[in-house]
Amino acid sequence: MRTELECILCFGKGALFLTKRFALSHKDNVKLHQSILREIAEADFNEPPPLIARKIYQLISEKTGEKDPFQQEKDLSTEHAKRLLKPLRTKLKTFNDPLEGLVRLVMAGNIIDFGLDAAFDLNTTLERITETFSEKIDRAALEVLRKALEKAKNVLYITDNCGEAVFDALLLERYRCKMTVAVRGSPILNDVTRREAEASGLAAASIRLIDTGDNTPGIDLCRSSGEFLEAYHSADLIISKGQGNYETLCETRRPTVFLLRAKCPVVMHKLGGVKQGSCQIHHVNIIP
Amino acid sequence: MRTELECILCFGKGALFLTKRFALSHKDNVKLHQSILREIAEADFNEPPPLIARKIYQLISEKTGEKDPFQQEKDLSTEHAKRLLKPLRTKLKTFNDPLEGLVRLVMAGNIIDFGLDAAFDLNTTLERITETFSEKIDRAALEVLRKALEKAKNVLYITDNCGEAVFDALLLERYRCKMTVAVRGSPILNDVTRREAEASGLAAASIRLIDTGDNTPGIDLCRSSGEFLEAYHSADLIISKGQGNYETLCETRRPTVFLLRAKCPVVMHKLGGVKQGSCQIHHVNIIP
Repeated sequence: MRTELECILCFGKGALFLTKRFALSHKDNVKLHQSILREIAEADFNEPPPLIARKIYQLISEKTGEKDPFQQEKDLSTEHAKRLLKPLRTKLKTFNDPLEGLVRLVMAGNIIDFGLDAAFDLNTTLERITETFSEKIDRAALEVLRKALEKAKNVLYITDNCGEAVFDALLLERYRCKMTVAVRGSPILNDVTRREAEASGLAAASIRLIDTGDNTPGIDLCRSSGEFLEAYHSADLIISKGQGNYETLCETRRPTVFLLRAKCPVVMHKLGGVKQGSCQIHHVNIIP
Repeated sequence: MRTELECILCFGKGALFLTKRFALSHKDNVKLHQSILREIAEADFNEPPPLIARKIYQLISEKTGEKDPFQQEKDLSTEHAKRLLKPLRTKLKTFNDPLEGLVRLVMAGNIIDFGLDAAFDLNTTLERITETFSEKIDRAALEVLRKALEKAKNVLYITDNCGEAVFDALLLERYRCKMTVAVRGSPILNDVTRREAEASGLAAASIRLIDTGDNTPGIDLCRSSGEFLEAYHSADLIISKGQGNYETLCETRRPTVFLLRAKCPVVMHKLGGVKQGSCQIHHVNIIP
């Protein structure tokens, strides 16, 4: 999907959130942000937002020398998610349909975000995740996913953030023999890379782990590694997690199921005017 | 005060809010916003935010040909404020100290903002204004203002938005013989210009009306008219309304009392960490 004008504000907020943690002088910070503004001013708004976001974060990384600024948040998110695993497994057992429980969990897991939030509390997070278990979901789309998962021989599962990846591992585990899981090729925001894959449980023996070869917070096929492209074109089903992957892949011609929480107005609108924070199962190019 | 990085987001929000009302294609809108981004990227962040804001709105005005996009909002705000005058006069009578009531009213009047808001409701606005009548204010600063007003021979009163200007007229009326009231030289946002002065009650016979000669949403002395500069330098007291005037005049050497509601984090911080939305009486260069 193309970049909307509203995305400019998100680029700005994201850049501000990140650069606040560097001990830059006001003067250097202004210089950095002015080069970010120039980057956005030169960007092609026909491209999806994550492609522009990558350029912005690349610029910040180059100017500050900080290659993985969210490492601490990523590790904390993974740790938090792992501590929630035991109570969540108990909750999952209450579902008559195990797949429904898992799909709800991998979408809701996105609630664990930026673990350095001082207000982060395990019990509250557990409650919030459990709440989404009774939210309305598209049951017809869930059935499409179920059938596609059963029929598929090669599934490419594209991950998003750390934390929720711990829950992704539970769904991957269920279909482990046919799964290839993709993480980002290098650090970007709090997205999973090879570094976090093992701690998240994604590096199980029977699951093939690949990376995109790229640090776009989504998928940019022009920058993807040969290994990723091969998996992308040969999979008979792609499962795409989160907003960034949706924004970059929503016009794909491959059979894809998007699992995400709709967080921003642009994505909410693109999905047909869905509710903020709602869990969405959205499929394209799958003949049920 | 200098422009902070957080101001970039406000520039972006303001520009988006304004350009949404023009029927521009996505392509033209992107081009316009990219030139705004370039303008901010070239701006001097040692200058106060309203000086950069003026350049942005000037650019939008040039590219769209729209010289006074908030005219309808301005007139509606004035109309709303006038309809509130009668019940507010009754409330003002409950103050033992008439000046306190008036000062509270001219600060609270800022609540009437952008009258096209579909949810705008006279009763709710009346309630919200009345609520601020019992809020904590700096009584020592009020006394400084009272004495300065009594002692002064020439007072320059710099207005801010339409709507609240109707209430400014009540305070001006009380000290009419010594008052010069300044409005903006040409349209910017919902600020009062000569066009709205009469309807707002600012054009009373005994009050001298001048304009800044400029469309900065604040005061830029380098762009002010000779008439304004003369009034600014000869006044023995300046009363400055609202955030934009505060941002541009807070480092003035003239005896000034700022009356404003603190709305943005940057101004709240600059005023010493005051509460969002709180009414502030802040004086500089006045020896009590």
